[in-house]
Amino acid sequence: MSDPRLRLWARTLVAYSVDVQPGQRVAITGGVAAAPLLTAVQRAVLERGGHPVLVPSLPDIEANLIAHGDDAQLAYISPVDRFAREEADALINVLAETNTRSLAGVDPERQRVRRTARSPLLEATMRRTAEGAYKWVLTLFPTDAYAQDADMATPEYAEFVYAACKLDAPDPAEAWKAQAAEQQRLIDWLAGKSELHLRGEGTDLRLSVAGRTWINADGARNFPDGELFTGPVEDSAEGRVRFSFPVVTQGREIGDIRLKFERGQVVDAAAARNEEFLIQTLDTDPGARRLGEFAFGTNFDIQRFTKNILFDEKIGGTVHMAVGAGYPDTGSVNQSAVHWDMICDLRRGGEVDVDGQPFMRDGRFVV
Amino acid sequence: MSDPRLRLWARTLVAYSVDVQPGQRVAITGGVAAAPLLTAVQRAVLERGGHPVLVPSLPDIEANLIAHGDDAQLAYISPVDRFAREEADALINVLAETNTRSLAGVDPERQRVRRTARSPLLEATMRRTAEGAYKWVLTLFPTDAYAQDADMATPEYAEFVYAACKLDAPDPAEAWKAQAAEQQRLIDWLAGKSELHLRGEGTDLRLSVAGRTWINADGARNFPDGELFTGPVEDSAEGRVRFSFPVVTQGREIGDIRLKFERGQVVDAAAARNEEFLIQTLDTDPGARRLGEFAFGTNFDIQRFTKNILFDEKIGGTVHMAVGAGYPDTGSVNQSAVHWDMICDLRRGGEVDVDGQPFMRDGRFVV
Repeated sequence: MSDPRLRLWARTLVAYSVDVQPGQRVAITGGVAAAPLLTAVQRAVLERGGHPVLVPSLPDIEANLIAHGDDAQLAYISPVDRFAREEADALINVLAETNTRSLAGVDPERQRVRRTARSPLLEATMRRTAEGAYKWVLTLFPTDAYAQDADMATPEYAEFVYAACKLDAPDPAEAWKAQAAEQQRLIDWLAGKSELHLRGEGTDLRLSVAGRTWINADGARNFPDGELFTGPVEDSAEGRVRFSFPVVTQGREIGDIRLKFERGQVVDAAAARNEEFLIQTLDTDPGARRLGEFAFGTNFDIQRFTKNILFDEKIGGTVHMAVGAGYPDTGSVNQSAVHWDMICDLRRGGEVDVDGQPFMRDGRFVV
Repeated sequence: MSDPRLRLWARTLVAYSVDVQPGQRVAITGGVAAAPLLTAVQRAVLERGGHPVLVPSLPDIEANLIAHGDDAQLAYISPVDRFAREEADALINVLAETNTRSLAGVDPERQRVRRTARSPLLEATMRRTAEGAYKWVLTLFPTDAYAQDADMATPEYAEFVYAACKLDAPDPAEAWKAQAAEQQRLIDWLAGKSELHLRGEGTDLRLSVAGRTWINADGARNFPDGELFTGPVEDSAEGRVRFSFPVVTQGREIGDIRLKFERGQVVDAAAARNEEFLIQTLDTDPGARRLGEFAFGTNFDIQRFTKNILFDEKIGGTVHMAVGAGYPDTGSVNQSAVHWDMICDLRRGGEVDVDGQPFMRDGRFVV
């Protein structure tokens, strides 16, 4: 791929998203299918005076480990993974799966064991991010596999990715700053308010964000980005929520998820497909039954559901929430080895009120 | 590549070459073009109870660094490289270039700077190997690029690689043990002897191996293997040597190399092609002008020169010697950031005497 946007993409990740400084050690992780972008990112890090540390990954390796590893092997965290999460100054992580179902045949219990073993890495990421000692950004390279999940041809899907990332703009960083300004306007309105009330098809949920911080997700951590997120008060969620889109994770598609919350905890969970896997995930640890994140999607360059959470959760006019680990910089104190985002499409007949005032109607912000 | 010899290859590297023990951390490095072998090696390490740590590398990354890095960037050694060389219990390294000339346009002086920066890794490898704290093996995956250098079609070249590695044998480990027994017979004869005298076309060289140890290269460190090597007494080489095959390294082909030695040191060096690069390499450091290795090739399954040192130096009936770093377990004390092997084909009219007795005639051992 010699698309000139590739170099623009790399430079935007390096200079805008993680703002690499001279001398910083920058881990560059991702599937080898993203080789053109990984290589462009290396060049961009070199241009900024940083030390690029390439950590490409091959397909099947993690699946092999989970399927065939013994207890000690499943518990083992490699020094390479530790470096990327616990030591590097920054991480640029490029999703580039060549088969999104490579974990389909793997025992969920073994996946849970592996996820739990890796949870210190997730904790380190969150802690170091909150301390300002670490910057990371997650992006996605348009592989055949992702295009297939999106029901699109690969070149068409690549255009979708570029548009969502604002890489068609003359200066993507400026375009993201403009997006951030609009998001800040919404955050300023939300500041100091407490109670959110969602209503939609199969959904009637209240939760509190009292004292919590809304984060302006402006392309610094996710690329594409476009959301406002916070950590709900851990014991506040009450009611029911029905998620509009399936969750696709770890080789499985979990469809039509419905959760019932009491005092912040999931007390009932159902799904039309892979329900058992949903429940096993919620049983990973106590934090996996509580919300770690609540967010509004604000990227109106993403209109269609493509079965990939990095894009789906940003769809302008949707909300999403995650069970499991929260981000400490939001004020969340929820800890878990899980962080599962699920999306409610509120573009048709959905409503969100904040402290009794209308905030979103039919997917449009009304403040 | 679903060739059943692939799994056999992986298992032989893991169980025979580096003899992985439960709990050991095994770095698996190599170009991503070798993905099928790297993945098979991961499985084989898991089967033995080890911890496989995959470190695949993308083409162009090292070339980009050397071409574009500033001084600090050229001097930087990544924690991933440190792990593989300084911390892991074992290393399985798979050469898998997709273009053997990827460094062709890079300034040799910058290559020298980079090589010098990396020399502590080479020293750590040699020191830890001598201490018995580290096992490593180097193999080569048959890419189009290597086949092209060998003037062969890729499937034909793959068969050449399999044959050289004894992977057509029902039990490759047993075949290597038989090879090792024959090599040991030669080493037993050489034990206690001192002076080697080589004569061939353009070559009349004497050197001493007094007090040095001959190593039986039996597939444990190189795969394929098949040589007896030692470290010459550092100030002993006297005379002239003309190397039969070009050296292909770092994107360059250095042809018709002739060296003159006095008291162990290269005092005159010439080449028909890339002579300047040869001389720059010899000037890397003082050790680069002395021999670190002298060896006999004993793999008679390799008959043809394929422009790849891993195979060429093993050709049955050749000798090779390396300027630069020696292996401490041979008794060599030569230190350098360089280790360049060069080959003398003695199969037509060549002679090697040891302490005045005939040892090799026309490429055949006569003891």
